[in-house]
Amino acid sequence: MNYDEILDQVKFDDKGLVTAIVQDIENNEVLMVAYMNRDALKATLEGPHTNFWSRSRQKYWVKGESSGHTQEVKEIYVDCDVDAILIKVKQNVAACHVGHRSCFYRKLEDGKLKIISEPVFDPKEKY
Amino acid sequence: MNYDEILDQVKFDDKGLVTAIVQDIENNEVLMVAYMNRDALKATLEGPHTNFWSRSRQKYWVKGESSGHTQEVKEIYVDCDVDAILIKVKQNVAACHVGHRSCFYRKLEDGKLKIISEPVFDPKEKY
Repeated sequence: MNYDEILDQVKFDDKGLVTAIVQDIENNEVLMVAYMNRDALKATLEGPHTNFWSRSRQKYWVKGESSGHTQEVKEIYVDCDVDAILIKVKQNVAACHVGHRSCFYRKLEDGKLKIISEPVFDPKEKY
Repeated sequence: MNYDEILDQVKFDDKGLVTAIVQDIENNEVLMVAYMNRDALKATLEGPHTNFWSRSRQKYWVKGESSGHTQEVKEIYVDCDVDAILIKVKQNVAACHVGHRSCFYRKLEDGKLKIISEPVFDPKEKY
């Protein structure tokens, strides 16, 4: 399928990136937030897995390329301004590189950050 | 409560902003994505409502200040890198300025964007 019509509508920022939220299609848990350039979004639209642009490493990144913790793309949504993308995925093992299923494993309680989930893998054995 | 300890941990980007995802606490629907500077995050932590920094208007923005469609802050989470914030809210009426409850009211189907929800208010009568 040709996705140029969609890609041309997306408002990438001054760094050529768009914000992508990844949500678990099974329970609607928000798993992570990352950023996509046009190539990463195109590859994600084509599927089957999510692809991103790493701002810290300044490189194209297939999610799960080193960990095997890929995300199978199930549904894709765009927001009103077409400057954010929501992707519902089937998450393999975990989204977060520190071992939790979701990157949002800390909740603010009484002014402190409290860990609210158990790790599902040991990053020391993985990376 | 003093939130300086939390605020000092947050990694604001080179524009002084952090990405914030707003999720409906009732059904876990992702309602919108916006950005916060330190002042907006501080005001959101203090509650009761979400506050943002508008990148397009370059101004501080209390969500619902003109529409009345405020978001009551219920839970706050941070991600592994402390450069994204997840806020679960009780949404008053709608998050989206074009009339839909969620900004993500368009889904990609067969290479086209399809509107998947009905508007819940008429923006012409509101703004």
